[in-house]
Amino acid sequence: MIRFKNARIMTLSGEKPFEVTEGEVWTDGDRIAFVGVPSKEQLEAASFEREICVMKNLIMPSFKNAHTHSAMTFLRSYADDLPLQEWLFNKVFPLEARLTGEDVYYFTKLANLEYLTSGITASFDMYFELDDYVKACCEMGFRSVLCGSVSGDEGNAERLEGYYKKYNGIDPLISFRLGFHAEYTCDIKLLERIGELAEKYKAPVSTHNSETAKEVRECIEKYGKTPTALFESLGIYSYGGAGFHCVHMSEEDLDIFARRGVYIVHNPASNAKLASGIADIKAIGQKGIGLALGTDGPASNNALDMFREMYLMSVLGKLRENDAAACDANDVLYAATVGGARAMGLDDCDTLEAGKQADLIILDLKQPNMQPINNISKNIVYSGSKANVKLTMCAGRVLYEDGQFTNADADEIYAGAQERAQRIQREVQS
Amino acid sequence: MIRFKNARIMTLSGEKPFEVTEGEVWTDGDRIAFVGVPSKEQLEAASFEREICVMKNLIMPSFKNAHTHSAMTFLRSYADDLPLQEWLFNKVFPLEARLTGEDVYYFTKLANLEYLTSGITASFDMYFELDDYVKACCEMGFRSVLCGSVSGDEGNAERLEGYYKKYNGIDPLISFRLGFHAEYTCDIKLLERIGELAEKYKAPVSTHNSETAKEVRECIEKYGKTPTALFESLGIYSYGGAGFHCVHMSEEDLDIFARRGVYIVHNPASNAKLASGIADIKAIGQKGIGLALGTDGPASNNALDMFREMYLMSVLGKLRENDAAACDANDVLYAATVGGARAMGLDDCDTLEAGKQADLIILDLKQPNMQPINNISKNIVYSGSKANVKLTMCAGRVLYEDGQFTNADADEIYAGAQERAQRIQREVQS
Repeated sequence: MIRFKNARIMTLSGEKPFEVTEGEVWTDGDRIAFVGVPSKEQLEAASFEREICVMKNLIMPSFKNAHTHSAMTFLRSYADDLPLQEWLFNKVFPLEARLTGEDVYYFTKLANLEYLTSGITASFDMYFELDDYVKACCEMGFRSVLCGSVSGDEGNAERLEGYYKKYNGIDPLISFRLGFHAEYTCDIKLLERIGELAEKYKAPVSTHNSETAKEVRECIEKYGKTPTALFESLGIYSYGGAGFHCVHMSEEDLDIFARRGVYIVHNPASNAKLASGIADIKAIGQKGIGLALGTDGPASNNALDMFREMYLMSVLGKLRENDAAACDANDVLYAATVGGARAMGLDDCDTLEAGKQADLIILDLKQPNMQPINNISKNIVYSGSKANVKLTMCAGRVLYEDGQFTNADADEIYAGAQERAQRIQREVQS
Repeated sequence: MIRFKNARIMTLSGEKPFEVTEGEVWTDGDRIAFVGVPSKEQLEAASFEREICVMKNLIMPSFKNAHTHSAMTFLRSYADDLPLQEWLFNKVFPLEARLTGEDVYYFTKLANLEYLTSGITASFDMYFELDDYVKACCEMGFRSVLCGSVSGDEGNAERLEGYYKKYNGIDPLISFRLGFHAEYTCDIKLLERIGELAEKYKAPVSTHNSETAKEVRECIEKYGKTPTALFESLGIYSYGGAGFHCVHMSEEDLDIFARRGVYIVHNPASNAKLASGIADIKAIGQKGIGLALGTDGPASNNALDMFREMYLMSVLGKLRENDAAACDANDVLYAATVGGARAMGLDDCDTLEAGKQADLIILDLKQPNMQPINNISKNIVYSGSKANVKLTMCAGRVLYEDGQFTNADADEIYAGAQERAQRIQREVQS
C-alpha cells in the first residue's frame, strides 16, 4: 500500500460547498483502501511500500478531460489566428491526411504528458489510428475512454461496432463508447445505423453537437431539425451519452438532454479561441443536465490544462449572464472531476472513497497563488494553476511527481514529436 | 557579470512577428551588457561571476503588470461569486478599513512573490500605506511604479503632490506617477486640482476609467460628459497617462486617448470575473492607442498571472469580434511586455538590448505544453503557463529560479499574511 499522511483531503463526495478535512489516504494496487484518520489498530495492521508526507497540502480526485483529440499536439501553434474555415480546410485537414499510426503514438504520448502536469488522469478521446493510441496510453499508465471518429457513409457503422467490441476489455485502463464525429460529416444512413447500434447494445452515444451556429443552421436546412432533435429521432440518445461543445442549443434540445440523461461536455477555451460562442451554463444547470469539462484538441485550445478550463467556465459564464454571481466555483470543480468521470462512464473514478479507483492528485498550497487559505475550492478555480500540481496518480501508480514523469521518457517523446511534426509540414509544403 | 549562454533569445525590439535567435545575454549590475553571439575577443575580455547554461530555452523581456492593487491578496477567495455591489460594499470596503501599514507590507510581499512566479518584474500599483508598500518592494528587489489612490475632496491634491515629490528618487526601483482612484470617488474640485498638477509637472496621469457601464452612465448624468471627456476638459490627460480597464469607451473617448498618447491598460480577467464586459481591442489597435496588460487586484481576478491575462486578451478579443483571426498572439505578447513598460514610464525596461535594465525571464520550453516548437510566440500566448517560468531577474538580480525565491523567505511571508488575513476577518465579524 501507499500511504499519504498529514494531508488536507477534499473527497468531493459530499454536498457543495465541498468540505476539506485532515487525515490520510491509503491506496492498494489500483484502488483507494482508506480515507480518514486511522486508528492505532488500523495503522499497526497496515503494511506500506511507500509513505508520502503531504505536508498539509491537498489531496483530491484527479481531473477528467471529457473531450479531446489528443494527437493533435502536432498542430499546436501551427494554425492560429485564422478564420475557422481556413484553419480547418487549409491547415488541419491536409496535415492530418499525412498522419501515420506511429505519428499518432508519439503525439498522443506528448498530450498525455501534458495532461499529467495539469492533474488530468483520464481523457475522453476522439481520433483515429486507435491501436497506436491505445498502445501509447497503456504504456504510460494513462486512462482513456475512446469514442472513435467515424464519419461518412453507412459502411462505417460496421467499423464502429468492431471498435466497440475490440477495445472494451482490451485493458483495465481502456474503454470504448459508441461515438461518431458529427452530424455534418455523416450521412443519414450512417446516423440511422448508429441509432440501431445504441439500441442493440443499450449503449450511450457521444458526438460533437451544436458547436457552431452554422452547424445548427445547416442541419435545420437539411433535415428540418436541430442536430439534437435529429439524433433523438434516430434513437441515438436513447441510452444517454454526451454532447461535445453544445454552444448553440435550443430549449427543446436541452429538454431532450435532460430527459435522456445525456451529458454536456463544455469546452470553454476552444469555443472562445475559435469564436464559436459561450455555452449557456445557467440553463444547463437549471435543467439538471450533467456537466463535464474538456480541453478539446491542442490545435484549437492550445493547452491541455484543466485549470484554464475551470477559470474560463466560470468567468465566461459570468460575462454571458452579466452577473458576477453566476457560475459558482464549486459547480466548476464538480464538472472538472465528478462530472467528467460520470460523462465518460468512469463511475468508480469520481471521488475519493475506499473502493474507488486511485485516480488522485496532490495540489501544492504552499505557493503564493494559493495563499492565504481563505477558501480552498475558490483558490483552486480562481487562482490555481498547473504549477500547483505536485503529484498525479492514475490507477494507483504515481505518474508525475515534483515536475518529473516517473513512467515516461519525456525527452524522447519531445524529440520524436518534433521530428514527426516537421516531417508532416515538409510533406505538405512539397 | 552574469552570462546566460546557449540560449534562444527573443528581444522584442524588432517588428512583428518577433524573431527568435540563438546566442548569449550578459548582464552587468542592473543593466544588460551584451546580446548576441560573442566574438572570441569579447569572451576573453569578459569576467563572469556566474555562468548559466540556458539549454536552448528562451530568454525574453520580463512581463510588466500595468494595473494592480497588490496588497489585496488578503481578500483572495474571500469574496467571490457575489454581485459587484455586494462584493464591494459588504466585503472589500469593511475589510480594507482594518488594514494597517504592516498588513500592507506582508500582503504586498505575498503579491510580489506571485508576480515573480509568473515572470512579472514590475507592477503599476494603486493602493495606500505607501511607505510600507515601498519597503516591501525594495526589500525584495522588485520594481514598482506607484500612482497612489487618492479620492475625496480637493484637500487630497496636496497629499498627491507630496507623494509625487517623496517617492520619485527614493530608490532606483521605485517611481511615482500622478494618479487618482476614479472619477466616481473624487469631487470636481479635486479633479481640477489634479489637472493643475499635470500642467505644473508636465506629467502623465493614470486612473481607473470606464470600467463599468454604470460608471460611464452616471458620469454623463452628473457632468454631461464621459469620464474621458471630463478628464480631457480638466487637462488631466494633457501629458498622457494611462486609463485602467477602459471597457466602455466611445469613439470620441478613444480619439482623445490617441491624440493625447494615453495608454489603455487592459484587465481581461478582472473584467470577465466581475462581469464588466470586454474592452474593444480591435478599435484600440485601429486608433493606434498604446496597449498594456494588467491583472488588477487579487480580490477580483484572483490570480496575478500574466499568462492568464495574455490568453484571455486573445480569446475574449476573438469572441467579441466573432472572428478567430482577431487579436493576434504577437500583439498580445507586445502588450504584456513592451506596452506595459511604456505605459508605466519604464522606457529602459522594455526590450532586451545592451544598455537596457536587466529585467528578463527564462521560459522552459522543455515541458509538454511548449512542444513541439512550431512557433514560440504562439506557444507562449496560447499554451504557455507560469509553470514554464524557470528564472526571473529584476534589475540584474535573480529573484526566482527553479521554483525557489532567492531573495525572500516565502514561508515567513505566507505565515504573516495568513495570520493577518484571519485577524482582519475576525475584527469585521466581531
